[in-house]
Amino acid sequence: MNRIAVRAGQPVFIATPIDFRSLFYPKSHAIIGASPDTGKFGGKYLASLIRFGYPGKLHPVNPQESMIFGLKAYRSVADIPEPVDLATIAVPAPALQGVLEQCLSKGIKVAQVLTSGFSEVGEEGRKLEEQLTMVAARGIRIIGPNCFGVYCPASGMTIMPGEELPKESGPVAYISQSGGLSRSVPRRATGSGIRFSKVVSYGNACDINECDLLEYLLLDPETKIIAGYLEGVKDGQRFVRLLQEAARTKPVILWKGGLTQAGARAVQSHTGSLGGQEAIWEAVFKQTGAVRVNSADELIDTAMAFTYLAPNCGRRVSPVSGGGAATVAAADTCERAGLQVPQFSPELRRRLAALLPPVGASIRNPVDVGTPFPTPKSLQSVLETILAEGVVDTIIISELEMSATTTSPTSWYRDKLFEVPVEIKERLAKPIVMVLPVEATDADGVRFEGERRKVCDYYLQKGIPVFLTLERAVKALAEVVSYYERRDAITE
Amino acid sequence: MNRIAVRAGQPVFIATPIDFRSLFYPKSHAIIGASPDTGKFGGKYLASLIRFGYPGKLHPVNPQESMIFGLKAYRSVADIPEPVDLATIAVPAPALQGVLEQCLSKGIKVAQVLTSGFSEVGEEGRKLEEQLTMVAARGIRIIGPNCFGVYCPASGMTIMPGEELPKESGPVAYISQSGGLSRSVPRRATGSGIRFSKVVSYGNACDINECDLLEYLLLDPETKIIAGYLEGVKDGQRFVRLLQEAARTKPVILWKGGLTQAGARAVQSHTGSLGGQEAIWEAVFKQTGAVRVNSADELIDTAMAFTYLAPNCGRRVSPVSGGGAATVAAADTCERAGLQVPQFSPELRRRLAALLPPVGASIRNPVDVGTPFPTPKSLQSVLETILAEGVVDTIIISELEMSATTTSPTSWYRDKLFEVPVEIKERLAKPIVMVLPVEATDADGVRFEGERRKVCDYYLQKGIPVFLTLERAVKALAEVVSYYERRDAITE
Repeated sequence: MNRIAVRAGQPVFIATPIDFRSLFYPKSHAIIGASPDTGKFGGKYLASLIRFGYPGKLHPVNPQESMIFGLKAYRSVADIPEPVDLATIAVPAPALQGVLEQCLSKGIKVAQVLTSGFSEVGEEGRKLEEQLTMVAARGIRIIGPNCFGVYCPASGMTIMPGEELPKESGPVAYISQSGGLSRSVPRRATGSGIRFSKVVSYGNACDINECDLLEYLLLDPETKIIAGYLEGVKDGQRFVRLLQEAARTKPVILWKGGLTQAGARAVQSHTGSLGGQEAIWEAVFKQTGAVRVNSADELIDTAMAFTYLAPNCGRRVSPVSGGGAATVAAADTCERAGLQVPQFSPELRRRLAALLPPVGASIRNPVDVGTPFPTPKSLQSVLETILAEGVVDTIIISELEMSATTTSPTSWYRDKLFEVPVEIKERLAKPIVMVLPVEATDADGVRFEGERRKVCDYYLQKGIPVFLTLERAVKALAEVVSYYERRDAITE
Repeated sequence: MNRIAVRAGQPVFIATPIDFRSLFYPKSHAIIGASPDTGKFGGKYLASLIRFGYPGKLHPVNPQESMIFGLKAYRSVADIPEPVDLATIAVPAPALQGVLEQCLSKGIKVAQVLTSGFSEVGEEGRKLEEQLTMVAARGIRIIGPNCFGVYCPASGMTIMPGEELPKESGPVAYISQSGGLSRSVPRRATGSGIRFSKVVSYGNACDINECDLLEYLLLDPETKIIAGYLEGVKDGQRFVRLLQEAARTKPVILWKGGLTQAGARAVQSHTGSLGGQEAIWEAVFKQTGAVRVNSADELIDTAMAFTYLAPNCGRRVSPVSGGGAATVAAADTCERAGLQVPQFSPELRRRLAALLPPVGASIRNPVDVGTPFPTPKSLQSVLETILAEGVVDTIIISELEMSATTTSPTSWYRDKLFEVPVEIKERLAKPIVMVLPVEATDADGVRFEGERRKVCDYYLQKGIPVFLTLERAVKALAEVVSYYERRDAITE
């Protein structure tokens, strides 16, 4: 393999192209350092894959074992009697280089290195990691080290431990420099109706890095939305160029960790990365149109909003609720987030007044239907009447009791108030955003939480995003609106 | 009753003192406009009181009924054969003045007016409301109109509908101009371990207003913390004076609605109040030391933090977690909120290094114990070692799996990792803050949510506040620290 070419009279390093197909869709997969002990990475990873139902061929490698979890174990990757697409490696750091050499000899194109103890632990680790980079340059591309693997429901691949993640695919790709967040974000995102095309835990990024992944995912037809948790960036110029491209093609939602002094210190101990400066990153977000988030919740909310809201959701909103304070909170929150709550015309107000009680309701914008339990007919008429006027793009519904609680009227189940927003969305093709907070928060109240989640699932199945609070709904909606406005401005 | 006195040659209006005892602890309580129909305010309110177990005498008043919910009903308040401490009134707006006259004749000192349809509906309603104020000036003090009543667990009083609210009292008083929030905030606060001395829904505040309530609660020995949702303020000067007093005595947590243009419009339709200007309110918060919040979640988080954290919680924190990204997020979040994450001394780092694995952990501050499932012994040693050094005031624990999930090791229940923070807090008398996010968010995952809530309840019983996210924990902690720093500066 000739790794050096000459271009314009200069020697140029040519990296082996990354075999992403083998990484995400391996048919034959060696787990080197596999163990019957699920307390160890090699055992936990293998157990996760088996429980998740990985359909390809699994080849555990461990010189001390002949069978692991009912699978034949090999002394060395060289002994596996067929070609191997992907090696996942969990041997101790000092043994790693030798194992990678064997993988190279076997012709394996890509390896996930779960092992930690590299640049995140200091100078000695940094040197070990440089050696990995050198091996990678010889033809085996490496994800990691210090990572948790890849989750790709379409191929049955999952991260460690990720056996409980959904089997269905979806439009969101997520890359995470943190192993912990590569697991907890998809777990928490499940209830928000987010499904993933691919999740990549990429750790210290000694070889394959955030730019390689971003470049691939921007072209990946299975991915419509990209989200990421980053600690460091290896090639700033390339990264900014890719984010600029993203502003034209797919939303990229980024949580950048380590932008404070204490955060930068933590980043160095975690993935051996350099944190960066808040001011520079602010400029990056501004110039590229990448969507900035600062927590797992914000990342999930924003990914949900992009999944469920079409580009026709706009800045002009009508918050509709069943309580006066909810109208006040909605108005304050929308205006602070840069959304518009246009005043309704006298004519529209007259029409709404005819539908609502004269006392306890509000027919301005925001609208208060006067009770958390309006009749389905009256809610339907109100939503229709507002949308018919054409002065708002999106409806935000809050403080209507869409799932039963101790104080629900007995007619609640019969009336099916919760079906009204779905009917309106489907018939009028207008975006609707729901807010369904957890109201009964104590241990006893968990039965109501079960009810609430069923209603959430129903909305998500019907394409309506559901948020836990008004503030979170408004923030996420505002991000989606801003992204599409910006994209329209670029591509016009 | 002579309501005008002459002072310094000038006539002065003397308001009848508010009989708060009769409002919060009525022994004999007339429900005027009571109804057997729980779809009506008068029926819903009475049903709530009965179900909540109100132990005093209940006298429904309704000329059309002889019995309501098994209680003798009277044609008029005049017919009740004993003195009445409190009247709760739910008759239609036009009938209200007559009813209040009857209450005056009966010698009733205070009335809650649930009826709506006053200044919040426009000019005509405003005039009707002025008439109420005139009646109040003759000796019956009024809460409302357009309100949901009072919740006072010690006396068995509850709001409408509030039968499911806790029976135990606690240190937090909460006043809400919104009826909806007078119900949803205490409901949601229950799972955060917040218990109330008194909750008052005070609606349009035609007579008893936020200043009267604040003045009373500042002196109320049952109240240690005051929280409020306000839309308008009737007497700005008095209000600011009271908040300045609060900075010396009790924390006052305020959510002021209607500070944007759209919000101010909504406030007018809701409680007939004037919204106010964001800049002026910012100055009020700055000058008085009242704690500003902008949502129900922030109000609840902050009230929980003040309930569970003593004045010795300080600005110097050590976030301890079981994952690298959690250390990064904690560091960034703390620094942005103005908390300090001091670097540990080489000596302390050496001592921590001896307790933790060489790879996958971090011994700087924040601390990563290397796994979400450390042994109880190792977590205990780490916390002891950090606190022994005396360089941090408060520990924030996140990303440790304190409640079981699908991926918990089988030893989880036996090991009782979740008991360690309690043991440390009790033995070393240092504040500990827990973060326990909802990880399994889908309908299936609700069984894990039940487990999580049980662990939350356990921590709250043991005096440890529990937050849903790191960001919320840090924000609330920072508010508590700032309040006590400010109070110390004033009182020194």
